[in-house]
Amino acid sequence: MSAQSELPAPSIDEIVGQKAARALGERALRTLFVEARTANGFLPRPVPRHLIERIFELAELGPTSANTLPLRIVLVETPEGKERLIATLSPGNVEKTKAAPVTAIFAADTKFFEHVPRLFPQAPKFKDAFTGEEKAQAATQFALTNATLQGAYFMLAARALGLDVGPMGGFDKPALDAAFFPDGTVKSIWIANLGYGDDTKVFPRNPRFRFDEVARFV
Amino acid sequence: MSAQSELPAPSIDEIVGQKAARALGERALRTLFVEARTANGFLPRPVPRHLIERIFELAELGPTSANTLPLRIVLVETPEGKERLIATLSPGNVEKTKAAPVTAIFAADTKFFEHVPRLFPQAPKFKDAFTGEEKAQAATQFALTNATLQGAYFMLAARALGLDVGPMGGFDKPALDAAFFPDGTVKSIWIANLGYGDDTKVFPRNPRFRFDEVARFV
Repeated sequence: MSAQSELPAPSIDEIVGQKAARALGERALRTLFVEARTANGFLPRPVPRHLIERIFELAELGPTSANTLPLRIVLVETPEGKERLIATLSPGNVEKTKAAPVTAIFAADTKFFEHVPRLFPQAPKFKDAFTGEEKAQAATQFALTNATLQGAYFMLAARALGLDVGPMGGFDKPALDAAFFPDGTVKSIWIANLGYGDDTKVFPRNPRFRFDEVARFV
Repeated sequence: MSAQSELPAPSIDEIVGQKAARALGERALRTLFVEARTANGFLPRPVPRHLIERIFELAELGPTSANTLPLRIVLVETPEGKERLIATLSPGNVEKTKAAPVTAIFAADTKFFEHVPRLFPQAPKFKDAFTGEEKAQAATQFALTNATLQGAYFMLAARALGLDVGPMGGFDKPALDAAFFPDGTVKSIWIANLGYGDDTKVFPRNPRFRFDEVARFV
């Protein structure tokens, strides 16, 4: 192709304009943030597995440190699985978890670094930063932080696909880990009910900080 | 109003249909997840403060355990602030951070529990679960987990408003905390450049896990 037939390269302002045009509309922002509320009860309707798998595929694309992807997820949907899960819950979390079609357990793989050569091939030796008993505590903290990021992406991806999410911290962590991660290398962080929420059971929204109370420009 | 003029209550299937209709379209999913990439360079254009404040307002609505909201954010944009920040970075993170119009420091307030009576008025005594020296380690872990959730919401809210985000873990944490959080109660977790990314500098996307490698239904 001759130089004359090529389009001129876009200017920086044109590129920035195109990037700004990626922004979501108000309706999408309402779905993700403004109108989304923690579900405290669920309508008796299932969530198809393909929808859960689509949430996963979106969330898995989100950034983690050195692409380590330490999140492990158990999706509890069978009566037998629910029974094992509910035995570990605080009393206040039992009824809504019974009502939810599926409950996600978000957990961190403390041996995540074994996958570094495959997931981060540009720096396979990053694995060595976490290998060895004396680095186990640093590895666990790294796994918890990055798996927590991924679980947040998962919850927002679930909202993005039209579901309601009810995250919960009230459970017996050692008991849940023994029931679902018996080999000891995967540690639960929090759990979340997923489904179509019963809006009559949502609590009033609690206060939030103003920007200038918790953030500052320097 | 007479009973006759009232609309019949919607059926469960109608409510679920309305909820499913909240789902984002493909374009929004591309902005948030599918086409979003970690920025590794930035176009020389500013990000207005009101856009950062809007990101904050959206992200602040996301769920945290007992609405504790432990995230604290410093937005580094001045030459003096950038200089202090860059002194703490790994060499590989310096150039892109110089180019970014603003860099967010995501940090956790380990004394978050002092705000529980205001933020979670239905259970002000939840504060006591973290008060006292013997509970300091549990409080710090709780703060880190919930602040990490909030930082993830912030990064996705930034993408939702059309920005590119470049999260980084490569910095000297004690040095950064000494420079930006000298009173010792706030602990940095990670940092992220914000702006309009230079797409010519993005790295190829690394592999991801398949669903069945890291998730399971039970």
